[in-house]
Amino acid sequence: MKFAVIITLKKDVLDPQGKVVEQTLQSMGINSLKNLRQGKYIEIDLIESDEKIARNIIEEMCKKLLVNLIIEEYKIRKI
Amino acid sequence: MKFAVIITLKKDVLDPQGKVVEQTLQSMGINSLKNLRQGKYIEIDLIESDEKIARNIIEEMCKKLLVNLIIEEYKIRKI
Repeated sequence: MKFAVIITLKKDVLDPQGKVVEQTLQSMGINSLKNLRQGKYIEIDLIESDEKIARNIIEEMCKKLLVNLIIEEYKIRKI
Repeated sequence: MKFAVIITLKKDVLDPQGKVVEQTLQSMGINSLKNLRQGKYIEIDLIESDEKIARNIIEEMCKKLLVNLIIEEYKIRKI
């Protein structure tokens, strides 16, 4: 069973890396750009046929290692 | 108009960073993990009301700066 985890910085947390990309794009002449924020995308393949159990395992991974819950938030999606 | 761009390594490209995360999770006792790959997630907010034009601008950003087309591939999603 395959899942995608999208990890983004919380709304109030500054994203300097995203800002740099944003400014670079603007200096390249892209004027309609309002805002850009960068995050992480993780694709996880599990040997587990029960979706509920699988989701719980992914939640555990996020809380224990993948996500810094102080500044980041995450979404889990089945793919 | 807001879009999400998901950038992943092409299937045949090695992902050492993902491998390290995978092995760490396994050594933490998560046995049902089969595979893990890491990518990038970019949220872009555009001042543009026409979706087709907006998508073209995002495509341009991807090709000119965000994506290394030799080893990476990308998906654009309206959010």
